[in-house]
Amino acid sequence: MERIAPISDNDEDVAVREQGDAFLPRFDAAGLLTAVAQDAATGEVLMVAFMDAEALEATRETGLAHFHSRSRGRLWKKGETSGHVLAVEAILVDCDQDALVLKVRPAGPACHTGARSCFYRAVQDGALTRVIG
Amino acid sequence: MERIAPISDNDEDVAVREQGDAFLPRFDAAGLLTAVAQDAATGEVLMVAFMDAEALEATRETGLAHFHSRSRGRLWKKGETSGHVLAVEAILVDCDQDALVLKVRPAGPACHTGARSCFYRAVQDGALTRVIG
Repeated sequence: MERIAPISDNDEDVAVREQGDAFLPRFDAAGLLTAVAQDAATGEVLMVAFMDAEALEATRETGLAHFHSRSRGRLWKKGETSGHVLAVEAILVDCDQDALVLKVRPAGPACHTGARSCFYRAVQDGALTRVIG
Repeated sequence: MERIAPISDNDEDVAVREQGDAFLPRFDAAGLLTAVAQDAATGEVLMVAFMDAEALEATRETGLAHFHSRSRGRLWKKGETSGHVLAVEAILVDCDQDALVLKVRPAGPACHTGARSCFYRAVQDGALTRVIG
């Protein structure tokens, strides 16, 4: 994620991370980074979740989005129950390599509520308005 | 963010948060939630950052994206130095209200590296390939 200044890194490390071609995912103190799943066809943001190293490896190996469930403390294959998996077409990484965008093809509604995207409401005049079905 | 199961919430609270029209942003133990800035015109994900209550309030009051800088421990108006502010057209919230999507009009490159988006590289065959200028 973009920050005003790098966190306790020397300039050489920052240059390698920002300009280099090495994938050096930067997990936080809890071992997590943020992953944004975006519909590869429509550009819609479907969901935001966390990945640890295990989830990232499982995603890269299988081509299906895996996350780390903080509530269950374990690897979570998206769609493992619902069948609504996310096939990963591309993985983008940000400047300081602590956030990912997964370009995905969803097999069904991405949200457990049945909505196409978890972001089905907008903040308007202090309240929420449903914006997608 | 979607989770396999809600975290220590009763069913009534979950229903209110997921289906209600009350904006009840859910900050984590560090007082933060995840915010994804997405270009309102192109759908491109520009950056991912964190907001605390102060940043969210400043964003809503000014119509310009504000975040919480973890490195500086303070409110951070995006573009405060570069002038590359993000004008917020809409704020979307996810099912459990711990992540936001800001639909924005960027005044310039969103990334401090000068790239249009912080997500200017893709993971391919174990290395990074530049995908946008």
